[in-house]
Amino acid sequence: MEEIQNTKTIKAALLGVGTVGSGVYELVRERQDDFINICGVRIEIAKILVRDTSKSREGIPSSLLTDKWEEIIRDDEISVIIEVMGGIEPARTYILEAMRAGKQVITANKDLIAEHGHELLSTAEEMQCDLKFEAAVAGCIPIIQVLKHSMASEDITEIMGIVNGTTNYILTRMTQSGLSYEEALQEATDLGYAEADPAADVDGLDAGRKIAIMASIAFHSRVTFSDVYIEGIRKITAKDIYYAKEFGSVIKLLGIAKKTEDGIEVKVLPILIPKDHPLATVNDSYNAVFVHGTASGDTMYYGRGAGKLPTASAVTGDLCTVVRHLTERHNNLHVCSCYRDIPVKNIKDTCSRFFLRLQVEDRPGVLANISSVFGTSQVSIAQVVQKSRENGVAELVIITDEVKELYFSDAMSILEQLSIIKNISSLIRVYE
Amino acid sequence: MEEIQNTKTIKAALLGVGTVGSGVYELVRERQDDFINICGVRIEIAKILVRDTSKSREGIPSSLLTDKWEEIIRDDEISVIIEVMGGIEPARTYILEAMRAGKQVITANKDLIAEHGHELLSTAEEMQCDLKFEAAVAGCIPIIQVLKHSMASEDITEIMGIVNGTTNYILTRMTQSGLSYEEALQEATDLGYAEADPAADVDGLDAGRKIAIMASIAFHSRVTFSDVYIEGIRKITAKDIYYAKEFGSVIKLLGIAKKTEDGIEVKVLPILIPKDHPLATVNDSYNAVFVHGTASGDTMYYGRGAGKLPTASAVTGDLCTVVRHLTERHNNLHVCSCYRDIPVKNIKDTCSRFFLRLQVEDRPGVLANISSVFGTSQVSIAQVVQKSRENGVAELVIITDEVKELYFSDAMSILEQLSIIKNISSLIRVYE
Repeated sequence: MEEIQNTKTIKAALLGVGTVGSGVYELVRERQDDFINICGVRIEIAKILVRDTSKSREGIPSSLLTDKWEEIIRDDEISVIIEVMGGIEPARTYILEAMRAGKQVITANKDLIAEHGHELLSTAEEMQCDLKFEAAVAGCIPIIQVLKHSMASEDITEIMGIVNGTTNYILTRMTQSGLSYEEALQEATDLGYAEADPAADVDGLDAGRKIAIMASIAFHSRVTFSDVYIEGIRKITAKDIYYAKEFGSVIKLLGIAKKTEDGIEVKVLPILIPKDHPLATVNDSYNAVFVHGTASGDTMYYGRGAGKLPTASAVTGDLCTVVRHLTERHNNLHVCSCYRDIPVKNIKDTCSRFFLRLQVEDRPGVLANISSVFGTSQVSIAQVVQKSRENGVAELVIITDEVKELYFSDAMSILEQLSIIKNISSLIRVYE
Repeated sequence: MEEIQNTKTIKAALLGVGTVGSGVYELVRERQDDFINICGVRIEIAKILVRDTSKSREGIPSSLLTDKWEEIIRDDEISVIIEVMGGIEPARTYILEAMRAGKQVITANKDLIAEHGHELLSTAEEMQCDLKFEAAVAGCIPIIQVLKHSMASEDITEIMGIVNGTTNYILTRMTQSGLSYEEALQEATDLGYAEADPAADVDGLDAGRKIAIMASIAFHSRVTFSDVYIEGIRKITAKDIYYAKEFGSVIKLLGIAKKTEDGIEVKVLPILIPKDHPLATVNDSYNAVFVHGTASGDTMYYGRGAGKLPTASAVTGDLCTVVRHLTERHNNLHVCSCYRDIPVKNIKDTCSRFFLRLQVEDRPGVLANISSVFGTSQVSIAQVVQKSRENGVAELVIITDEVKELYFSDAMSILEQLSIIKNISSLIRVYE
């Protein structure tokens, strides 16, 4: 554990403090002590750019708010800019100015990266600063990091993903509950998943921006939003989904990019996929990205693609990386990261549910006897099924509720000595 | 594209050239030109340490082989050591000596990291060199990178994974085909998934080493192999799997680590999980790791946990990271990585399968008419189902074979003009 008192502070500014921005503020504040251990410095959100400084925002000190970009860009103590305001302008101008002023930049802005990625990345290269955008694609799924670093040595030939939570929620509801498109959209709107104007989601534009960004990185060749062939889900009916099911398929809105011998194919469209494909079981507002590399084969990355804290988590992950660069902490990332010293519990002190298969005497009162032993040891039975009976021996399967392993093993030692128990053939734990 | 002629070369040595080692050699050779663009330098496997230099190895030039460690450790031109020999000694000594000689190290050796990780990482810290071990856990699933970097800002509370391909193959075969444990093990042995002595796999030791490594990184607190409570799968019977299925569950061998208020729980055991849990559909020799963070929620990482090229891919991914460090290329990883210029194809030049729902006149000859239009445009029909017929109108659902989009849209323009076609209500693509 490093000394917290004398720790250097790195100051960051938030541009925007809507859903994602307030999540970032919350995580940076709550995890400050951990960040000191992870990054070697204290991280502080020192200023927040908003349109209206008089509006009160829960949990955000009004002293941090400013409506003047100059106050941030001219503040030499602020070394990191976190852009979570969205839209093309003024976000683009602010980011360019920040990089030219020698600041590092993190953005969650997919529209901007999909449209002006080349300009922004070229400026980052020229200024030798960081420009990170993990949160722009698939929320907290670390697909940008995976494609740029972990799979750096891979020849990626296909990337395919469910990268829009709103449409995945709508299609899941239509599939699982037989809702019409309109009913499912209404539900998504009521839950806050869909915006008042749902066009960017349901027409596939949002997914189009994300597949353009992922394809560029995966294939090392520029793919822009305008290259993507896009169809949305407005025309999908409950009947289509019903018939698809008859063919053993589900309908998902997929972004698909393939590197073929004669060029890149890149599209967003609703598509029937077999129900045993890993992407078929990605439901509700979850996202998943499927990547095929010639050496790795198929890999898949699954998680929340949107939402306050999952998106904020992707932003603060980038923040840690940027801060580690600033502090040269990337040079010793091999270092053991065990700065805590948490005790490891003995298995007897942990809790489990149990699946128990045993052969017992086939006569009345046996189950009562077993239940009583369990009861005395604080083990409660969730389910009992008698599976077979022959030659005076019955086979029972018992599933218990969650219980401390110690109590359960006490019960088992007593049971083992009962003459009514002929054999305990299986003892397997059950996921709670 | 950088100039290839004047590119600097970074030399690496392989310790061992078995399955994984020969895969690494193959990938480094095949992707040499790409690596120049990705890392800014040429990467060369300059020496390979083997026990017997006289044994011929397919695809490996015998001039690279040596049985003398001194030739590698004393070669100042070799800056990266890739240890894929396995076992504790002499691997441990070689790695320590290499780091002390100022070389960077990559290893795929989980036994060594789980047992001597602290010693090795401390030496890496002292020597300020890289020690990377992505391939040691879950093959090409980049879980180490994800935990150390992408999820750096997360408070991880649970990590749980199917991290042994052999036992997952055995349990999958028992579940899907009703084989006994012995039959499934025999099959795994015949296929080369299980070793002659399968103890490390079926007794859960291999999974135990992996969950210890993951728990240490996820919880920032040291967990060693001896801390892990371990049960294997030898006692699981076909009957247990059958009964589990009746309870809506499948049995998987899971490594589970939880951070609770009073300590860390860490175990490997066969467990019943509900069949709709994402881990339940991870079958055959695939691995998957499920991570719960307080901000990110649930995320999952899925891929091949073993095998020549998937494991070699994890090693070469580490190699790219290490080489980028050596060349200071990590300082400008924000740089646009689009060094290729691949054309993007027009949707009309790509191929798809189609699901088509249409209303047609309900009289003989109509299907023949449609088929003939399709046939002329090179569209072949895979399936046709008549779904309903009322008021002289029949509803047809047609699924085509894969066809160039251009040909299909030609066929559609002709169909649209036929008087027998009343309406085309759906046109959705089908995943090939």
